[in-house]
Amino acid sequence: MKITILTIFPEMFNDFLNTSIIKKARLKNLVDIKIVDFRSFSNLPTKRVDDYPYGGGPGMVLMCQPVLDALKSVKTDNSYVVITSPIGVRFDQQMAYRLLEKEELIIICGHYEGFDARIYEYADQHISIGDYILTGGELPAMVITDAITRLVKDTISEEATVEESFEDGLLEYPQYTRPETYEGLQVPKVLLSGHHDNIRVYRLKESLRTTYLNRRDLLEEREFTEEEKKLLEEVIEEEKKQ
Amino acid sequence: MKITILTIFPEMFNDFLNTSIIKKARLKNLVDIKIVDFRSFSNLPTKRVDDYPYGGGPGMVLMCQPVLDALKSVKTDNSYVVITSPIGVRFDQQMAYRLLEKEELIIICGHYEGFDARIYEYADQHISIGDYILTGGELPAMVITDAITRLVKDTISEEATVEESFEDGLLEYPQYTRPETYEGLQVPKVLLSGHHDNIRVYRLKESLRTTYLNRRDLLEEREFTEEEKKLLEEVIEEEKKQ
Repeated sequence: MKITILTIFPEMFNDFLNTSIIKKARLKNLVDIKIVDFRSFSNLPTKRVDDYPYGGGPGMVLMCQPVLDALKSVKTDNSYVVITSPIGVRFDQQMAYRLLEKEELIIICGHYEGFDARIYEYADQHISIGDYILTGGELPAMVITDAITRLVKDTISEEATVEESFEDGLLEYPQYTRPETYEGLQVPKVLLSGHHDNIRVYRLKESLRTTYLNRRDLLEEREFTEEEKKLLEEVIEEEKKQ
Repeated sequence: MKITILTIFPEMFNDFLNTSIIKKARLKNLVDIKIVDFRSFSNLPTKRVDDYPYGGGPGMVLMCQPVLDALKSVKTDNSYVVITSPIGVRFDQQMAYRLLEKEELIIICGHYEGFDARIYEYADQHISIGDYILTGGELPAMVITDAITRLVKDTISEEATVEESFEDGLLEYPQYTRPETYEGLQVPKVLLSGHHDNIRVYRLKESLRTTYLNRRDLLEEREFTEEEKKLLEEVIEEEKKQ
């Protein structure tokens, strides 16, 4: 998979490209990530990329020319172009899987100053990583790249992704490791029992509990097995008593 | 404001701390951002920080000792401790404002391997930046730090934040800059008119339109002025005809 990121701050990506999973995936040629500086495409002698907004108002607006000339220099028939922007559709795990299907993904990093709105016409999709304002689209581009890269085959072991939050519509169950007691806090007895089915049921129930307590909205959209229904009822009863 | 980030990948933060708004805010002493490597707190000779999960399953789990010893080394009575985790409450602009009130914020970066659940007991809040899985909590910690830092007084001009997405419960209106025509795409005539009230009404209506088209959920929670109600009705009529 090829991911090309268009940005005004290319220097922000060095550490990202050279740490952890992203570095490993690049070294194994599982992903090809390219950073393009759209400032270098400015046809103004000063390499300026922004100008005042028509109609007045605070801030500056990024101009069509440098951004779109940069885009045209990398776009092919197989490219899928997204822009990071708070006005976009919200990024989630399902969208990460959909973008994984694309041969070449181009991410244009939004900027707090705002883009000339005509730039949006050249993108296939506008994506927001959440309802908050950041100084630029560089962190969102990294978030999208990271979420997709770890789903690329062979990047991390497949079992590791199966039991994660959102993969089955629930948040993840709690995990514990040694020691059995830390400052008086104990590992739940069932996890030390070696009884596989009890452990499975415990984890499913705690997954339901965490989702019920933190993200009830996820439960509303989900279909449940008979076992899950029964466990969720137990959770609700138990939490009422708290 | 002081922000301390506990991580297993301190090297991921160099570029982040030295680019754009974050760099400026640090140089002006508006924020003090400190990165702490919890691996250096491991009391194992190998500096190992993870171990196998009790009860079996794929992956490894980060141990209490290195993470909590690192936390204890920086925590004071004024600290507010958050952990980035997909099981957390969703981060948004309102939460950014609430965290801005804290004197000292400590962010513990989650990790794809998962934490020993007992670590969560030492945090005041668990925060998720969105419904997707990342390889680590480093990008979420940067997202939270960036969203808060730009709200710190004097970091960016105040007018710049007032007209942004989410600040008034709507997405931002489209912006345009020179030239008037780019590849046949025109700047809306009203923005060239110099008529301030027409420009204000146009922008309010387009803000309502973008929100209606991309994020109808934001409209459901919002109270409207009479003018907004009328403009929104016009938008809905116009979009029906599309």
